[in-house]
Amino acid sequence: MSNNSIGRRFVITIFGESHGKCVGVVVDGCPPRLPLKEEDIQKELDKRKPSKEFYSTTRIEEDKVNILSGVFNGYTTGAPICMVVWNKEVQSDVYEEFKWKPRPGHADYPASIKYKGYHDYRGGGIFSSRITVGFVAAGAIAKKLLKQVGVEVLAHVVEIGGVKIKTQPTVDEIREKVYSNPLRCVDFEAAKKMEKVILEAKKEGDSVGGIVEAIAINIPVGVGAPIFGSLDADLAKFLFCIPAVKGVEFGAGFKAARMRGSENNDQYVVRDGKVITLTNNAGGVLGGLSTGMPLIVRVAFKPPSSIPKKQRTVNLKTMTNTEIEVKGRYDVCFIPRAVPIVEAVVANVLVDHLLLLGTIK
Amino acid sequence: MSNNSIGRRFVITIFGESHGKCVGVVVDGCPPRLPLKEEDIQKELDKRKPSKEFYSTTRIEEDKVNILSGVFNGYTTGAPICMVVWNKEVQSDVYEEFKWKPRPGHADYPASIKYKGYHDYRGGGIFSSRITVGFVAAGAIAKKLLKQVGVEVLAHVVEIGGVKIKTQPTVDEIREKVYSNPLRCVDFEAAKKMEKVILEAKKEGDSVGGIVEAIAINIPVGVGAPIFGSLDADLAKFLFCIPAVKGVEFGAGFKAARMRGSENNDQYVVRDGKVITLTNNAGGVLGGLSTGMPLIVRVAFKPPSSIPKKQRTVNLKTMTNTEIEVKGRYDVCFIPRAVPIVEAVVANVLVDHLLLLGTIK
Amino acid sequence: MSNNSIGRRFVITIFGESHGKCVGVVVDGCPPRLPLKEEDIQKELDKRKPSKEFYSTTRIEEDKVNILSGVFNGYTTGAPICMVVWNKEVQSDVYEEFKWKPRPGHADYPASIKYKGYHDYRGGGIFSSRITVGFVAAGAIAKKLLKQVGVEVLAHVVEIGGVKIKTQPTVDEIREKVYSNPLRCVDFEAAKKMEKVILEAKKEGDSVGGIVEAIAINIPVGVGAPIFGSLDADLAKFLFCIPAVKGVEFGAGFKAARMRGSENNDQYVVRDGKVITLTNNAGGVLGGLSTGMPLIVRVAFKPPSSIPKKQRTVNLKTMTNTEIEVKGRYDVCFIPRAVPIVEAVVANVLVDHLLLLGTIK
Amino acid sequence: MSNNSIGRRFVITIFGESHGKCVGVVVDGCPPRLPLKEEDIQKELDKRKPSKEFYSTTRIEEDKVNILSGVFNGYTTGAPICMVVWNKEVQSDVYEEFKWKPRPGHADYPASIKYKGYHDYRGGGIFSSRITVGFVAAGAIAKKLLKQVGVEVLAHVVEIGGVKIKTQPTVDEIREKVYSNPLRCVDFEAAKKMEKVILEAKKEGDSVGGIVEAIAINIPVGVGAPIFGSLDADLAKFLFCIPAVKGVEFGAGFKAARMRGSENNDQYVVRDGKVITLTNNAGGVLGGLSTGMPLIVRVAFKPPSSIPKKQRTVNLKTMTNTEIEVKGRYDVCFIPRAVPIVEAVVANVLVDHLLLLGTIK
Repeated sequence: MSNNSIGRRFVITIFGESHGKCVGVVVDGCPPRLPLKEEDIQKELDKRKPSKEFYSTTRIEEDKVNILSGVFNGYTTGAPICMVVWNKEVQSDVYEEFKWKPRPGHADYPASIKYKGYHDYRGGGIFSSRITVGFVAAGAIAKKLLKQVGVEVLAHVVEIGGVKIKTQPTVDEIREKVYSNPLRCVDFEAAKKMEKVILEAKKEGDSVGGIVEAIAINIPVGVGAPIFGSLDADLAKFLFCIPAVKGVEFGAGFKAARMRGSENNDQYVVRDGKVITLTNNAGGVLGGLSTGMPLIVRVAFKPPSSIPKKQRTVNLKTMTNTEIEVKGRYDVCFIPRAVPIVEAVVANVLVDHLLLLGTIK
Repeated sequence: MSNNSIGRRFVITIFGESHGKCVGVVVDGCPPRLPLKEEDIQKELDKRKPSKEFYSTTRIEEDKVNILSGVFNGYTTGAPICMVVWNKEVQSDVYEEFKWKPRPGHADYPASIKYKGYHDYRGGGIFSSRITVGFVAAGAIAKKLLKQVGVEVLAHVVEIGGVKIKTQPTVDEIREKVYSNPLRCVDFEAAKKMEKVILEAKKEGDSVGGIVEAIAINIPVGVGAPIFGSLDADLAKFLFCIPAVKGVEFGAGFKAARMRGSENNDQYVVRDGKVITLTNNAGGVLGGLSTGMPLIVRVAFKPPSSIPKKQRTVNLKTMTNTEIEVKGRYDVCFIPRAVPIVEAVVANVLVDHLLLLGTIK
Repeated sequence: MSNNSIGRRFVITIFGESHGKCVGVVVDGCPPRLPLKEEDIQKELDKRKPSKEFYSTTRIEEDKVNILSGVFNGYTTGAPICMVVWNKEVQSDVYEEFKWKPRPGHADYPASIKYKGYHDYRGGGIFSSRITVGFVAAGAIAKKLLKQVGVEVLAHVVEIGGVKIKTQPTVDEIREKVYSNPLRCVDFEAAKKMEKVILEAKKEGDSVGGIVEAIAINIPVGVGAPIFGSLDADLAKFLFCIPAVKGVEFGAGFKAARMRGSENNDQYVVRDGKVITLTNNAGGVLGGLSTGMPLIVRVAFKPPSSIPKKQRTVNLKTMTNTEIEVKGRYDVCFIPRAVPIVEAVVANVLVDHLLLLGTIK
Repeated sequence: MSNNSIGRRFVITIFGESHGKCVGVVVDGCPPRLPLKEEDIQKELDKRKPSKEFYSTTRIEEDKVNILSGVFNGYTTGAPICMVVWNKEVQSDVYEEFKWKPRPGHADYPASIKYKGYHDYRGGGIFSSRITVGFVAAGAIAKKLLKQVGVEVLAHVVEIGGVKIKTQPTVDEIREKVYSNPLRCVDFEAAKKMEKVILEAKKEGDSVGGIVEAIAINIPVGVGAPIFGSLDADLAKFLFCIPAVKGVEFGAGFKAARMRGSENNDQYVVRDGKVITLTNNAGGVLGGLSTGMPLIVRVAFKPPSSIPKKQRTVNLKTMTNTEIEVKGRYDVCFIPRAVPIVEAVVANVLVDHLLLLGTIK
């Protein structure tokens, strides 16, 4: 299978580069009869745009999407849907240097070796977070399909630069508030502290990371399949394909490793004629199958690696030590922008599984 | 693609059930000319066996492997290698109850719904950790292939029941000591405390989880491929297919989310004519590509869900609340046995990628 | 994907060698709740056995199947079904010679080069028609699944050694008569001539080929998917994996190339409230989709390449010319035995597509 | 895997419709460092254009290709290469009728049922031969890669409307002459007769089919892999995805079914230190593996189904019988235009296999 395709029934193929002509995606497997307009996609892409207040150093793209195929008379046809976003705000001159003088923490070094210098290093090329435009565009379709069967995916920031939210918000709170604040954090008090931490880092020419949590509700019981079609495994695979992700955990996650079985096991009760669990340490997945409880996954992002601060690096041509100061536009903190991306990825994986099972037709 | 197959060039297909006739695996893609005997596989399977001291409640299988195909005159032929381990120590009577009275924390509930009661629920069926026999058998072949190109995979216990190792052991220490102690923990002092914690939990009819870390060395630079062939994403996918895994992180992992970019970025220097990084917060992978530094991945396992302690559950037939006490044999702590499994999984993924790249032929 | 797996939802993984311990197959994707016994499989395997009258020179195996997994209490569980047939009647001594002295028309030569002599050359190894045991075993399950939705697959011999059937039999005739005669040919007059041609060839130490036709009825309209999920393309792929197949055609096939559009086009009429075509030159497939008319595919088999007649060949070690007379057991004509194999292959592909569409659940 | 993707290492994903915005293809798996310009692609696309003399009724598109990604500074980067051809000469009004009044021999009927009327029926939508623009664009890259290892793919017309070529041309003759004549037939005498047959059919509002043969030379021995990675099976699969293909055969093909083993077997001799066969009835493939002899495959195309002649059909809405006369532009004979398409398909499959083997890097 292609290195740039993912999914079995809702198959996404990514193309494009950060500073090339466009970034794009082909979505194959969307059933016919889904009403679909460019605005449906645009709405989700707009969530991914940087907020001007915090990220003045960042490239700000209009990111207008064009649907090239698969839609006819306002409905999907069942044929592959190709969508592109043409690149505009490109400043490529600063990147020449990184080809042989790799930025620490970025893919420059292994990419230069792997592609022998023939890769498009401008703006990170295919390693740029810009390729997630395709994830989000596909996710916009996925969300529409999920809506048909009542499944909803939400995400929010739970930690930035070491500042954590105080209490876990409800699903309703996330739905209402997450996109109302530029940090995509529902705990507004915490959000203020996060903002401060980001601005401090910015002042020092540095960057910060954080953690995004996704919650998906109303997933039927039994989605996923043992052994290698496990729902959590498929989610983890796609989530780790988002640039800068270093950790993924479900439910209690790493904390579960410190719990006793009696404490971690989610005990069952019947409530209103439905089986539920009293806790949700499993994060809605057991044995690779959905349990019917909310799916909960947390994704750890490292801080952006491109920073103005001086760092040690090497010259790959002369094989000597040197230093680097990354100039140009950069993200001090990518976490708020990661929220719609994580949402999209979870939606894409869920649709893939629900199509496989015939729940979505 | 099959739900029970994984890999692109080194493709593993799993079959069998915990209490059926056998557990087995078909390995496709092993090149011809590799010397291979049943003992090579047996040696790795033996590492997976429970240690009698701690786990007296556990089913102890002889786990003798049979190679059914793909080997001729002591060498692999290039044809698929089917390996089976016949089940023997089977006590299935206790499991009848779990079909409609699901054990908390186990796959019983979603499996009963998904398969409408037709799944083989005895001993967990295909959801049992016993299916990892196939992972380890395949991993034995993978390790032999990796050895040809100098790549080595090691794993060790870094945490059990909240007890962490004090200092990070060297690769040499892990290689020498890990299988010399029943906890598979190189910090012998910590191991003693872990032992105490396990025995306490056992006394109370409870169980404990923990964290296993794998380290792979001598991986060439540039293994993996953007976007969906990312090395870390492929590792995460397979690792999450190991029963009871709830979290996976690379390098600094979740801690990276709390670091500044300047702190987390691994700076490059030339040493002895080779490019290395001064730190390895990336865990040997950037942009989905190996960096040439050691690959480091940590895997969080929840405590075993089958415990004798009384727990609340439901009767799925009558849809009423009830209680359960899981009788019979059980693992108080699976972590030491997870060490060779994690090793095998990492080896399988690495071989798959190195075959794709033509590094292994 | 594995070289030894095929299918997307009904995935077959083949293993084993002609003269190794066994031949076998793992079938993944069979839904739970299908009643399945070893006799169901055995019945189909028995059809594949050589008829003693004609094929006295052939290896005659008992071919008893063992189901190793995926069936519990007489029903499929949804887990992978591994089936093996243990090899017994093995006479391997004659094959040593072919390793470096390739039999004309057989895979010996390219296999020796590809595997550098490490392949299992005994009895053709994985290139033997014996591997089709797995196709037929899987096909037995496929046929049971197809029956649930009323789809039926039949096959019959239409040509052997240049002798063609006179008139196209009806589906009912094929169903009733095909397995009643050892040639699997419904035109008994033609069958007699075929028998004569076979016996003549046998006397001369030679072999003959022929053509098998499969017909599948009651396929719903619209099975298959453009572009690369075309039903005919998937059938062709699997059919060409049967050893000795050199041609595949649908409906009018190669004859369609000589027809005018007005003659070849199947015109539509409404009959009994159903859309049918007046002719079926398309063979039931248009644009890669089933039309609802009978699927018709013809498969051309070359004559068996292992013949006692003296032939020129080379010694690959000395790189000199030499001659060969293939001793031991051989099939003078494989065509009648190919009938259940072609049936099985068509059934496997149809089930795969019907599972994909959710027609079979 | 996606219905619109094919290949394992050289993966082609098709999108677009006949009368939509564009037709396009994403090629994933092309190694970095291949010099590539739009002209390289255009040259092959131009071969696919209809010849004005014969096909005056046909839509004539400029078919200018745009490379959107994967090429940087004139070289491939290793990233996916997206190519589009914008549609221009679109006359869609005539097609409205076919949505519920299916053209005999076309995919209209099964497509209307499958997609419930939501497919893009204009110009055949995704069922149009226009989607082969993507096959040819990808094939242009494939041919450049094959050239690096000396493999060459040629194709020519061997039969049109019942007129066959007299003698098999040599590879040199095909290479020199095939694109010099509008029928893509190297036997100029036969070509004249074919022309006559086409013009007659045109006069009568009818169409004709034919047979294209491809020959690929210098393929190393052992390309392909048993069982389901057979070279001939992979070729057949892709060839049957070309619209209007009804039969595929290798070497002697269907004729082999009428030959004796002693006649069909290609006997080996050593010539100039190389193993060759005295005949090539196998068409260069045995046991799914290339033999090193020329690969020979013939592809039967039915006559175009869209013809002005009056034909019976049905109204799917009223479920009544009716008639149809297909107006507008149409191809009387598609065979000459199929030559570069067949070439491209064979090249795509060969590159996929040679990348898998590491022959092309």
